[in-house]
Amino acid sequence: MTTECWVQTPTTRYPVVVGAGLLEHMPEYLERASVGPDRPLFVVTDENVQEVGYADQLTAVLRNAGYSVGVGVVPPSDASKTLQTAESLYEQMVAAGLRRNGVVLALGGGMVGDLAGFVAATYYRGIPFVQVPTTLLAHDSSIGGKVGVNLKSGKNLVGAFHHPLAVVYDVSTLATLPPREWRGGMAEVIKHGLIGNPELFADLAARPVPEYPGPEFTASLVSRAIQVKIRIVERDEHESGERMKLNLGHTVGHAVEQYSGYRLNHGEAVAIGLVVEAEMAVRRGWLSGSTRDQISLVLQRHGLPTRTDNFPFEAIARLIQHDKKNVNAHWTFALPRAVGDVAVVRDVTSEEVAAAWAAVHGENGGTA
Amino acid sequence: MTTECWVQTPTTRYPVVVGAGLLEHMPEYLERASVGPDRPLFVVTDENVQEVGYADQLTAVLRNAGYSVGVGVVPPSDASKTLQTAESLYEQMVAAGLRRNGVVLALGGGMVGDLAGFVAATYYRGIPFVQVPTTLLAHDSSIGGKVGVNLKSGKNLVGAFHHPLAVVYDVSTLATLPPREWRGGMAEVIKHGLIGNPELFADLAARPVPEYPGPEFTASLVSRAIQVKIRIVERDEHESGERMKLNLGHTVGHAVEQYSGYRLNHGEAVAIGLVVEAEMAVRRGWLSGSTRDQISLVLQRHGLPTRTDNFPFEAIARLIQHDKKNVNAHWTFALPRAVGDVAVVRDVTSEEVAAAWAAVHGENGGTA
Repeated sequence: MTTECWVQTPTTRYPVVVGAGLLEHMPEYLERASVGPDRPLFVVTDENVQEVGYADQLTAVLRNAGYSVGVGVVPPSDASKTLQTAESLYEQMVAAGLRRNGVVLALGGGMVGDLAGFVAATYYRGIPFVQVPTTLLAHDSSIGGKVGVNLKSGKNLVGAFHHPLAVVYDVSTLATLPPREWRGGMAEVIKHGLIGNPELFADLAARPVPEYPGPEFTASLVSRAIQVKIRIVERDEHESGERMKLNLGHTVGHAVEQYSGYRLNHGEAVAIGLVVEAEMAVRRGWLSGSTRDQISLVLQRHGLPTRTDNFPFEAIARLIQHDKKNVNAHWTFALPRAVGDVAVVRDVTSEEVAAAWAAVHGENGGTA
Repeated sequence: MTTECWVQTPTTRYPVVVGAGLLEHMPEYLERASVGPDRPLFVVTDENVQEVGYADQLTAVLRNAGYSVGVGVVPPSDASKTLQTAESLYEQMVAAGLRRNGVVLALGGGMVGDLAGFVAATYYRGIPFVQVPTTLLAHDSSIGGKVGVNLKSGKNLVGAFHHPLAVVYDVSTLATLPPREWRGGMAEVIKHGLIGNPELFADLAARPVPEYPGPEFTASLVSRAIQVKIRIVERDEHESGERMKLNLGHTVGHAVEQYSGYRLNHGEAVAIGLVVEAEMAVRRGWLSGSTRDQISLVLQRHGLPTRTDNFPFEAIARLIQHDKKNVNAHWTFALPRAVGDVAVVRDVTSEEVAAAWAAVHGENGGTA
């Protein structure tokens, strides 16, 4: 089963195709996006994706279809999301003969998509790119056009809005995903259910999916989660308002992820963030205690953590304060009002987060 | 006399203010662009501009008006237009407390405008910036939203389209411009006359301006030249067609500039490019020999070179071939049909350029 939906914003329109075995059909998707073999391609990927053979598979398919294809391989992990790696890719693209008419393919997870998208956004003042996700987490990052790299002083501080020409999501590549990465990706699927698809959330509560369930079921999961994201991105392309709902779990999650020194992966940190932020919503009288408990239980059933190993709250608060999303003295959070209903609030204080943090971590938790 | 005109494209609208003593009034222009003292500013400038005091003057004016102002100073010359310098500026902006609501001021020539504009275009996925040109050449580069940095393998290969909030052009800063830089800037003024203002060209032919003529006359010159550029940028924001007319003199000029190892400045190289490209137009039967001679004479009267010191054409041809503007086997050039009438042609061959090059350089010129 291949599903296809479209992202339509004031500035662009592109297809998101989800299915099994799509890598083999990449030339068709390129042709549909008006990218013929006269245009040079450049595949950006990481060593892990290369090792399991997807980069070779994709380049072989493309070359057989007559495309000229350069390949840039970067080390895995967020450590590659830098201006230095970007510069190395630009130089490789020049050497590969890529010009204004070239097209970049981002084959990998969110790191590869963000990095390759940024490189495409800025090479010759912007050339097109195609997202070819190979992780579950990338169902989130591949939609919406946010691309970028990290600075020493913070993640994603340098970037652009640059939508892909298309997202071609071959879910059979997820078969080789390490189990822990699958579970991390499920945190974002659960988040999308919470934000905009109560049925998806209920299904995950009734029948958890803590490991890769095969391509058909994965395609359906990914499609449902992606559609939540698409609807929000379409209504708020440049994150001026509603798109901030997508930060559910992320304000606390980013801080937790950073404090852990990235020993917690992104999804694990977001899972903890979802629980703390649900507790905040309970304390505002917005969310019932039973819904909070259900959120926590669903995360646990997907093998995800729901509290930290007693990280000190003072450090978490400092990291939230430093977070780019908080311009003012008060903090902006996305908080759940119910399953399927998230509100963006701009009046959150450190004390409010501290109280929820302490409750989640028990009386002996990390608050002063 | 302060003149003001507007740039209006499908995506943006911003004022271009030209006059003497405008630095002192910067707070007014910021307020008009809805940038109040609650928003942190960051001035990017170079050591030369700092040395003559304009950076101190501007920051003092802004701080007196209640703005918080960070300053990033980079070494002068194109050697600063790199990703490394950009990274250093991003980090300084983080340290200065600039967030999503910050605004960058580009105080300097084209290099500073391109670099600071690129940094603004990519910091937090894009924050606003104001162009504050201090050179004559920058009348060209400050309009149109093209920003970027160089790679080792080529100039301006990394960049974005990012329009300024405003261009505030204090022509009294041009009083301290080295005479050779003034003359180089005049090459672009002459080019703009050739492209779209025959009266401006005729005035320069009748009364050359080989040195800074004082702020009033400079303001008038700059305004007239800028208006040619604005009209074209408005009709073709992203250089898909008509904007290529602005490349008049530049296809050969860039190659000459590179081959000289930048001993020829940009305007000097463009002057030579204008003459070679005028000769090409004569050989196509498009331009009269007398107009070609007049172009050459006007450039000479502004102290500009009209031929190289016998650079070998083979090397020039290789550099043109490498130029990003030429995607196909045939080269795209902007060629003059008359004063005030430029055509973009896509069928230029190496042989055609070689013949004109040889004619300009005499029979013993650099052709094989």
